[in-house]
Amino acid sequence: MDPYKTLREEAFEANSEIPRRKLAIYTWGNVSAFDPAGGVFAIKPSGVGYDALTPANMVVVDLDGKVADGALRPSSDTDTHRVLYRAFSGIRGIIHTHSAYAVSWAQACRPVPVFGTTHADHAAREIPCTAMMSPQAVQKNYELETGNLIVETFEKKRLDPAHDTMVLVAGHGPFCWGKSAAESVYHGAVLEEICKMALLTLSINPLAATLPEHIIRKHWERKHGSAAYYGQVSR
Amino acid sequence: MDPYKTLREEAFEANSEIPRRKLAIYTWGNVSAFDPAGGVFAIKPSGVGYDALTPANMVVVDLDGKVADGALRPSSDTDTHRVLYRAFSGIRGIIHTHSAYAVSWAQACRPVPVFGTTHADHAAREIPCTAMMSPQAVQKNYELETGNLIVETFEKKRLDPAHDTMVLVAGHGPFCWGKSAAESVYHGAVLEEICKMALLTLSINPLAATLPEHIIRKHWERKHGSAAYYGQVSR
Amino acid sequence: MDPYKTLREEAFEANSEIPRRKLAIYTWGNVSAFDPAGGVFAIKPSGVGYDALTPANMVVVDLDGKVADGALRPSSDTDTHRVLYRAFSGIRGIIHTHSAYAVSWAQACRPVPVFGTTHADHAAREIPCTAMMSPQAVQKNYELETGNLIVETFEKKRLDPAHDTMVLVAGHGPFCWGKSAAESVYHGAVLEEICKMALLTLSINPLAATLPEHIIRKHWERKHGSAAYYGQVSR
Amino acid sequence: MDPYKTLREEAFEANSEIPRRKLAIYTWGNVSAFDPAGGVFAIKPSGVGYDALTPANMVVVDLDGKVADGALRPSSDTDTHRVLYRAFSGIRGIIHTHSAYAVSWAQACRPVPVFGTTHADHAAREIPCTAMMSPQAVQKNYELETGNLIVETFEKKRLDPAHDTMVLVAGHGPFCWGKSAAESVYHGAVLEEICKMALLTLSINPLAATLPEHIIRKHWERKHGSAAYYGQVSR
Repeated sequence: MDPYKTLREEAFEANSEIPRRKLAIYTWGNVSAFDPAGGVFAIKPSGVGYDALTPANMVVVDLDGKVADGALRPSSDTDTHRVLYRAFSGIRGIIHTHSAYAVSWAQACRPVPVFGTTHADHAAREIPCTAMMSPQAVQKNYELETGNLIVETFEKKRLDPAHDTMVLVAGHGPFCWGKSAAESVYHGAVLEEICKMALLTLSINPLAATLPEHIIRKHWERKHGSAAYYGQVSR
Repeated sequence: MDPYKTLREEAFEANSEIPRRKLAIYTWGNVSAFDPAGGVFAIKPSGVGYDALTPANMVVVDLDGKVADGALRPSSDTDTHRVLYRAFSGIRGIIHTHSAYAVSWAQACRPVPVFGTTHADHAAREIPCTAMMSPQAVQKNYELETGNLIVETFEKKRLDPAHDTMVLVAGHGPFCWGKSAAESVYHGAVLEEICKMALLTLSINPLAATLPEHIIRKHWERKHGSAAYYGQVSR
Repeated sequence: MDPYKTLREEAFEANSEIPRRKLAIYTWGNVSAFDPAGGVFAIKPSGVGYDALTPANMVVVDLDGKVADGALRPSSDTDTHRVLYRAFSGIRGIIHTHSAYAVSWAQACRPVPVFGTTHADHAAREIPCTAMMSPQAVQKNYELETGNLIVETFEKKRLDPAHDTMVLVAGHGPFCWGKSAAESVYHGAVLEEICKMALLTLSINPLAATLPEHIIRKHWERKHGSAAYYGQVSR
Repeated sequence: MDPYKTLREEAFEANSEIPRRKLAIYTWGNVSAFDPAGGVFAIKPSGVGYDALTPANMVVVDLDGKVADGALRPSSDTDTHRVLYRAFSGIRGIIHTHSAYAVSWAQACRPVPVFGTTHADHAAREIPCTAMMSPQAVQKNYELETGNLIVETFEKKRLDPAHDTMVLVAGHGPFCWGKSAAESVYHGAVLEEICKMALLTLSINPLAATLPEHIIRKHWERKHGSAAYYGQVSR
């Protein structure tokens, strides 16, 4: 009997979606699936290609970073994941990739403006971009400090991780999360598309304006508000 | 006996073409097929992925927005479709997607100039872009007002929906239509390609000029005029 | 016994390569294969999708534009092809497509500079771009005048169609040719790649310089000169 | 008994990866696999398409450029490969392609700045770009001089080929190498992605800054330093 069977399978499925959605080449992305009751998450093993992944080789880690189960070493970004699970209650899955358009906004150190309804359907504000990490923070535990940098950015900008589910780490790339590992991957793919559209928008009109607030609210509410009417299921 | 069998199948086929033509990821696009005799159209169910579509789960809606048949909720954009079917006589299919290049022109709030014959083969004028929707209109029925905005744009610019079959809704994305659901998808894919070419043209030559009117007319007429000679069938 | 069997098959194979190389969507490109002995060429039927092509439905046309054999109407661009076969002795295949990058340079009305060895491997000069066609020429036989415009451009610029096998028609798109229909498609695909690279080069460095003449000559000669040493076959 | 069986197979596998990774169209890229003990390398035959490659038609060449085994002519870039194997001890595989983004930086004659961690994970410095080759060098053995130009660039910039495994030849394109033919292809694909991201970064922010040195060092060290902790294997 494997107590982590479901969690492993969830993590495996979500990681397998990365190459299908073209969010990373080689091993450049990882997803974890979190079980708040057990206080553990299953995550991709470090440096293993997507073709070689199985539910069995997912690594189960607790919130202190200790491997609870698994023969392989977990993703080198594991400490970032656990900081976010600790700080952002309610999230159940996290994705990090090096998808090209999101990375490019992160490298440009620019938050992504809300240029249109595609963005507003998924985030009611600009996609935040962290500050560049300080030499002091890099000296400590780099991946853990990456998590802290994201959390500080959310505190400083008074963002709510239940609604703002995507962030760019300056000079690095995107982290996204959701109510499940699968939803985090959805947010990762959405962010990549939003970032692509925002770049193309600027290349057509370098002075493109942000979508007016009344349209942002409308699109956000019709998908996420108390009176949301998009899709089939009530929420 | 299903009186909507053909209509459903037409809508199903046309919606299935969206991912094949890469016009939307996830559920970000919908097509409807209209039967003017019955005064109803079949449309994609809201929030359902393309892989899960079947002719049976297409939703049949009348021009008042009432579901005539179908177990699921219709696309959240249904009211936009019915406004267009009411206002633009002769159209039999409508597509709305979030294809990246067309969305980017919409986000840039720029009509697409006629830069070449690829455009002129399908539209003899620039692709219009609506004004941004007012807070007052958003307060009412947003999707219905999206349809009204398109209709007003066509009235103001004296466009003929029989010839001008593509429009950009500012800050949002494209709507296209045609003499069938399949033709509307064709126009959706053509618009995406025209938008891509127009962006690339500007990136080579930011001062690129519009195609001269005598070449625009020639290309339009050889495909759509009374003496059209493109293709195999007489019109 | 079909005297055009080989010619039809050559044209069919070459047209089928258009979607495989992603040089056109829908029906937006055509190839012909020429038999100088018979004075005829086989060409794609007008408006027929690539999936529906067969060797049998290729249309055989003579140099006066008369259909020698075939049930369908030939490509609307047929008159352009026959002007080129008449004027450019030695060519045996012609391709015209609406591939996005080549069209964009044509829409920008810019010849493509020799920015690198990829270009110089296939053309020792910039890819020429014609002037915009005059209203008078459009009034006559448009497609035939398109051919004349290309021929005049080659005369004015003293280009040799045996070496310069690619041209952009201003505001329209590319025509390429070769010693066979298959080679013309190769040149069409090469031009698209060269045009993409040239656009990307300008977006990295808007002041990018042309490759020095001594490197252009070297790359051209090692593939096409009398002492060419690329590939397996002597020439 | 074929003494070169393993070497041929390694070269064949690596060359076959070129089209799978979309690093070249047609025949525009080649990989070699080096055996330092035997002083020979196996390389792609010149002008042969990837579909036609087999282990058997790989060409085995020694460091003087003499064909040791094989019925076909080796890649026209063979002399560049052998110069690099002579000069850069420890490398076991080399790739050269005309991948679009890397070529575009080479055509722009710009080294690729370290804009982010994707780059720093694979190179701790900018990707160097050589000077343009002189007319005198082109007059001699062009491909051999291409190798010399790379070696001189590394000497002048005091680069270590064990760590800096990618270079752009001005006006031409990329050469990459590695501890195996497979690793050289990995570096070729990584370079293409880095070049794409760098171009997109500049198009979002033309004044984008280089990643701070403390983050560059951290990312490089976590993958390549003595205390590297990325992946599963110790090094």
